[in-house]
Amino acid sequence: MKSRRKFIKKVALVSATTSMPMVLMANQAVEDKMIHQVFFWLNEGEDVENFMREASVLGKCPTVAKFFIGQPAPTEARDVVDHSYQVACTLFFKSLEDQSAYQVEPKHLEFIERNSAKWNKVKVYDFMI
Amino acid sequence: MKSRRKFIKKVALVSATTSMPMVLMANQAVEDKMIHQVFFWLNEGEDVENFMREASVLGKCPTVAKFFIGQPAPTEARDVVDHSYQVACTLFFKSLEDQSAYQVEPKHLEFIERNSAKWNKVKVYDFMI
Repeated sequence: MKSRRKFIKKVALVSATTSMPMVLMANQAVEDKMIHQVFFWLNEGEDVENFMREASVLGKCPTVAKFFIGQPAPTEARDVVDHSYQVACTLFFKSLEDQSAYQVEPKHLEFIERNSAKWNKVKVYDFMI
Repeated sequence: MKSRRKFIKKVALVSATTSMPMVLMANQAVEDKMIHQVFFWLNEGEDVENFMREASVLGKCPTVAKFFIGQPAPTEARDVVDHSYQVACTLFFKSLEDQSAYQVEPKHLEFIERNSAKWNKVKVYDFMI
């Protein structure tokens, strides 16, 4: 019951301040506040599967609430769709502070040190949900 | 018990074919197979809150498994981080087919017709998870 009460409180708060439909909030995990979305463009010939194994350590960083890793989907080629990266990581955090802590987390820094020579471009989008 | 068996089967399958750590898969919702990530750059002076209300209908399209909508987070300004868009939508689908169905779903097409004049750029990333 405790989490149910927390959920109702959150919906009421959000509805009162932004008029966002409740159905939208109901689809969102109440505890997650932001998404840190990262795309990697690897050097030609780089072993993508090995890189994904290396990147999977990011999901084990203590403040990461949810972690998804993937590769471009074979969806329709359209001007607006970018399929040119090799690996995507989607990280959910419970707060901005948790994301800041992740940026200096030793496992994260070690991943960068071990693998940064493998990519030629990284793009990041951070947004509150 | 049925879904538990399905989960175990999936983990075994993935581990055998890609050697991805089980802990990574355990963090992922077994039923979701892809993420459709969209960023909108709205015209100057556009009402962002109103646009988010309009975009929230996308989460009600029948094949959308999970829907998150947000605005740029006040994270550190770094070369790799793009904070220049106004609205981000993260959609989870259970299959590529569900995403294809979403592309022609009347609620989605109506949203585009009602709102496309409000943005000057859209960027989409589709990836299998």
